[in-house]
Amino acid sequence: MKKPNVVILGAGYGGLMTTVRLQKLVGVNEANITLVNKYDYHYETTWLHEASAGTLHHDRVRYPITDVIDRNKVQFVQDTVVKIIPQEQRVLLEKGELSYDYLVVALGFESETFGIKGLKEYAFSIANINAARQIREHIEYQFATYNTEIEKREERLTIVVGGAGFTGIEFLGELVNRVPELCREYDIDPKKVRIICVEAAPTALPGFDPELVEYAVGVLERKGVEFRIGTAIKECTPEGIIVAKGDETEEIKAGTVVWAAGVRGSYVIDESGFEEMRGRVKVDPFLRAPGYDNVFIVGDCSLMINEETNRPYPPTAQIAMQQGELCAKNLAVLIRQQGELQPFKPDIKGTVCSLGHDDAIGVVFGKKMWGSKASFMKKMVDNRALYLIGGPSLVVKKGKFNIF
Amino acid sequence: MKKPNVVILGAGYGGLMTTVRLQKLVGVNEANITLVNKYDYHYETTWLHEASAGTLHHDRVRYPITDVIDRNKVQFVQDTVVKIIPQEQRVLLEKGELSYDYLVVALGFESETFGIKGLKEYAFSIANINAARQIREHIEYQFATYNTEIEKREERLTIVVGGAGFTGIEFLGELVNRVPELCREYDIDPKKVRIICVEAAPTALPGFDPELVEYAVGVLERKGVEFRIGTAIKECTPEGIIVAKGDETEEIKAGTVVWAAGVRGSYVIDESGFEEMRGRVKVDPFLRAPGYDNVFIVGDCSLMINEETNRPYPPTAQIAMQQGELCAKNLAVLIRQQGELQPFKPDIKGTVCSLGHDDAIGVVFGKKMWGSKASFMKKMVDNRALYLIGGPSLVVKKGKFNIF
Repeated sequence: MKKPNVVILGAGYGGLMTTVRLQKLVGVNEANITLVNKYDYHYETTWLHEASAGTLHHDRVRYPITDVIDRNKVQFVQDTVVKIIPQEQRVLLEKGELSYDYLVVALGFESETFGIKGLKEYAFSIANINAARQIREHIEYQFATYNTEIEKREERLTIVVGGAGFTGIEFLGELVNRVPELCREYDIDPKKVRIICVEAAPTALPGFDPELVEYAVGVLERKGVEFRIGTAIKECTPEGIIVAKGDETEEIKAGTVVWAAGVRGSYVIDESGFEEMRGRVKVDPFLRAPGYDNVFIVGDCSLMINEETNRPYPPTAQIAMQQGELCAKNLAVLIRQQGELQPFKPDIKGTVCSLGHDDAIGVVFGKKMWGSKASFMKKMVDNRALYLIGGPSLVVKKGKFNIF
Repeated sequence: MKKPNVVILGAGYGGLMTTVRLQKLVGVNEANITLVNKYDYHYETTWLHEASAGTLHHDRVRYPITDVIDRNKVQFVQDTVVKIIPQEQRVLLEKGELSYDYLVVALGFESETFGIKGLKEYAFSIANINAARQIREHIEYQFATYNTEIEKREERLTIVVGGAGFTGIEFLGELVNRVPELCREYDIDPKKVRIICVEAAPTALPGFDPELVEYAVGVLERKGVEFRIGTAIKECTPEGIIVAKGDETEEIKAGTVVWAAGVRGSYVIDESGFEEMRGRVKVDPFLRAPGYDNVFIVGDCSLMINEETNRPYPPTAQIAMQQGELCAKNLAVLIRQQGELQPFKPDIKGTVCSLGHDDAIGVVFGKKMWGSKASFMKKMVDNRALYLIGGPSLVVKKGKFNIF
């Protein structure tokens, strides 16, 4: 009997969790497992705001994929996925192609610019390790350049964050801690620095408990962030942004613009002819793409409706990992042709949003929390993600223990 | 009797040495001493190549001026000199003006671009702390950006150094050590990085012993530097440089161009109507400007002919400090109106050119040396400069002790 080919695309939270669970569930002789990823490392997407601000080195945010996979069972291919041809059970890569019996698509998110002019060209987005390093260095270069110019341009020291959602707020929390360090490094008066957050929605952190939102905004404002709520970015230019509130428009000059207001699924989904909405596929209860019983979609590329709220579940690491876990179990059922497929039921333990290394807000097991307690919980959430994929040794290597 | 006003312009090697020696020689009631400097710190100009490459933090390269001056005797003014009016014994500053009975001009060097098109706009020069930080960050930003671009531009990883003189060679020595660190930091294949040194003269380090030059060039070539000797930079563009050798021209694309091939005296000299050549004044044996017996010029703005070679002495820290020492003695003679002015006689102990932190070439007390012995000597030279100005406590604070 021919061993089935299982191909997993992407080594983010969803894909890597599928891989490490599947390698435990099946034996060497039961399946050929191939994991494809653009880089030879996994990175903690939910920690990228720290690497981008420069408050945590990017090497603390990533680890080699070969550290967590069992190379006797899993073949790792470093390549970029170009397109899936589900009718032919093939995947085109930049440097090769693969055929599969079972496919797991875990290609994660990309930045969504909603067609805002100039955003792609002139704004950064906190997308991956490469982008995070560039944002860190771009901001630092602006500070390093300021004092070299005879005509001082204070807009070099202005940082605009587009979006006061989860990523925007967490990034602001790091920036307010980073800026005083940069001011010392480059002999700059902190009063000259501006951090401006522009949010089109009528509140920061839409969907969060209002009392916690107020706490978060208050903390960031006291540390110098200017919030422009209910204000939309209309255009991004080489000099900054143009915003609109009602009928009034205004130009804000800024040396750095970071767009943290929109994500979508992978463009590979669009390319491959799946039924999709912004790169996300509405999957069946077993996480399969409509029409293809052998194609599972986990993480930010999958779309599931929360029946309690009638809205899609948000694209979070928590859900991606739970999906990966279930996907591995269902793959084992299919490979062995015994047992029954299980439907996905998310188990939302809570959400914690950091405000720098020593403050946070969150709701955990239905309980609201803020300050050092929430910050402690955030670090436990971060360490738990490491534990679930790489066990205790990965927590020791990469975990966050600056908890007191 | 009115106390004379002594004004010292510039807190580089020459000006600061004049100040610290003069404050020891005269009493509080003998003179008003005012030191003017653009920054509130002194920096080791001869170490700036390290800060520029990023191999030594710029805070290791500078110290507060108030650490070494006696504030009972010396008034420190942080301001920028605009113009000297020697006929009226006045100095115009950006934010004020001073009148003097005795003036010491120690305004140091500026970059000389020899009218090469685009050099001022598109090339960096290792001029001061601000510039050094910007060069370090510019190079780092090029490396950080490389992997974020879909179309990789390898010229981002090309660094051109204009000039294989003393500064150019020392900067190359640091760069070859820094580049492997940057490659690790930004996941870049070191083979993609190019370091190109362009020198118009027929040899690197003109004036140095040929055997030592060969050693230095060999060391740097083995670490990856490409030398283009006898090749002139014709133009600098936003994309790189255009060079010419004989009749042939060539474009070299480069993300970073550092111009290390020319220095001149301060433009304040030109502005102030002294007889000058490229901002340097041919001083009398007592270091005085022609026509003004109360204006002393020390350091890189002064020009003295070495009668043995019939060429000017090079602008070095060694000579600047010796001039400062003599200038302080002569000022004390004038202030007290007793004794006789002494002529300046340089005492060249040697020259050591570093090739990174662990290698160097040099001639010290007439003896040629290279390798770790020369490197040790270089660090002793650096520590000696600290000792002469700030005594043992400054050596302890800022000295180089990584000598084994």
